[in-house]
Amino acid sequence: MRSLEDGLIQGIEKATKSAKPKASLRLGLGDDAALWAPRPGHETILTCDWFLEGTHFLRDTHPPDSVGWKCLARAVSDVAAMGGTPKCFLLSLALPRSHTGHWLSQFLGGLRRSARRFDCQLVGGDTTRRGQILINIMVLGEVRAGEALLRSGARAGDLIFVSGRLGESELGWRSVRRGRSAGRRNRRSVRKHLYPEPRLALGRWLAERQIAACMMDLSDGLSSDLPRLCAASGVGALIDAWKIPSVQPGENRRLTTANSLALALDGGDDYELLFTVRPRKVRQVPARFQGMPITCIGEVTRNRVIQIVQANGQKKDLIPGGWDPFRR
Amino acid sequence: MRSLEDGLIQGIEKATKSAKPKASLRLGLGDDAALWAPRPGHETILTCDWFLEGTHFLRDTHPPDSVGWKCLARAVSDVAAMGGTPKCFLLSLALPRSHTGHWLSQFLGGLRRSARRFDCQLVGGDTTRRGQILINIMVLGEVRAGEALLRSGARAGDLIFVSGRLGESELGWRSVRRGRSAGRRNRRSVRKHLYPEPRLALGRWLAERQIAACMMDLSDGLSSDLPRLCAASGVGALIDAWKIPSVQPGENRRLTTANSLALALDGGDDYELLFTVRPRKVRQVPARFQGMPITCIGEVTRNRVIQIVQANGQKKDLIPGGWDPFRR
Repeated sequence: MRSLEDGLIQGIEKATKSAKPKASLRLGLGDDAALWAPRPGHETILTCDWFLEGTHFLRDTHPPDSVGWKCLARAVSDVAAMGGTPKCFLLSLALPRSHTGHWLSQFLGGLRRSARRFDCQLVGGDTTRRGQILINIMVLGEVRAGEALLRSGARAGDLIFVSGRLGESELGWRSVRRGRSAGRRNRRSVRKHLYPEPRLALGRWLAERQIAACMMDLSDGLSSDLPRLCAASGVGALIDAWKIPSVQPGENRRLTTANSLALALDGGDDYELLFTVRPRKVRQVPARFQGMPITCIGEVTRNRVIQIVQANGQKKDLIPGGWDPFRR
Repeated sequence: MRSLEDGLIQGIEKATKSAKPKASLRLGLGDDAALWAPRPGHETILTCDWFLEGTHFLRDTHPPDSVGWKCLARAVSDVAAMGGTPKCFLLSLALPRSHTGHWLSQFLGGLRRSARRFDCQLVGGDTTRRGQILINIMVLGEVRAGEALLRSGARAGDLIFVSGRLGESELGWRSVRRGRSAGRRNRRSVRKHLYPEPRLALGRWLAERQIAACMMDLSDGLSSDLPRLCAASGVGALIDAWKIPSVQPGENRRLTTANSLALALDGGDDYELLFTVRPRKVRQVPARFQGMPITCIGEVTRNRVIQIVQANGQKKDLIPGGWDPFRR
């Protein structure tokens, strides 16, 4: 990690220091690079994610500790999506000088909490000064050799599952945007938007027991991500609208049945897992995992079309409508 | 790698595809993450670097293929600085829509050339749309266990060496800024600024033969980077002004002896290696390595002061003046 601001690095190091450094890590912050030696019989997972002011968060709307939590959580979710365990991360941070005080310390507080929660240690990165807040997180994880769950493993006849409830984070974002009182009324969805929890335990469980055939995380919304999984596997899908787990109209006064479904299909940032299971293994999938619902929403088909069966029984092509709320 | 622009990813994949995928890599672009298994007995080196429009390059001044070459070369230099070998990299790219055509294809051309030159394969990343061009490169390298050269290995009495000539890249940047004709007159320094060559072979040679005790790359200028090496090792240094290899006044009509030294001390972006050697091993250091000069510029001292002996014999504290030319 290097920077014109050596003091900034020391602050970051102090704020995110891990109680118990990982045995696999021989060198962390303060050198040209970090050193990593994975355990024998394991593969290393590499992933990185942008988290940019104006695109992924708003400087004056999102609390800085949420920015710190979420930038790591999003990247860790890619490790969960492979069935792996996060180990360490690199932080690339560009900041205005005005944000090196209170904002930075709150940001690092959120980052430290998520690093502890996901047991993932800061080992390096790069910092620079910039008018806008730019973040890039690179996470390194571990998975037993041969156990990683890819996007390309789906076969016709597999059943399609999702964890949790879809569209909840998007609903939370709408409350955050409307301000404090809306946020208080919809605490659960606001929490999911600000402090998402990647499904690490479920991902590992599905990989270790070899229950899932194929997996990815839902970051851009089901209607955008399911076609990616199908493209990688060379298959299609048929899903049932009424099976998709979503926030119910009764829970939020602005929701109707129709826009609850639209939210579940197109809302981003949920970081739930989307996976397929061979028919003979379906009985091994629990209805709930650690209190979180696991729902079968349809099946994988041979033809490469992705369709949704509506409540009236009609089939319709699924149009990718996953979106970034800041861009429209 | 994921993006709202799936087509962009395919273009990047196509443009940077490696002729021979590395055996250690089981999965590359198009999934949630990449998978990596280093060879037994090796450690993995992790490093990342910002390369941002306006901070590290100028959109209308730097040719896009130089931006592609240099963003990877800079990050690879951190691997060279540990004595390692680069293996693969993640590319995080944010672009304006106006730059997804000609600019992107030129950029990818430069990136592909440097990826081939350094034998380093693109395995993933993240893309998004943005008004400014933002790049972050994460490189993963390999080094035999225990052979990595850290910044913290210097001891009093070690001799201090640098590779190549210092200040040359900064001189090249001045020519680039002045325009085409200045660039033609100073091809060598312009080339070093636009297409730097990290000192991979020298770094590996010094690590494998255990000749160097301590090493880092010069990215911000000797006067900024030497204090970092000394701080990491808990030592000081005494260097001799007249020993520092620099561009000579005769080579450039704007250079005088005084500003040639200032360039060598404070010019950034050289990506030469700075290393120390125990006295008993000094005879093993060649005067040239693959045609490039290797120069002893001083020695490591016990007291934590960093001083420079000037041509008149007077000692003076070395003031960090390494700079980013775009920021002043």
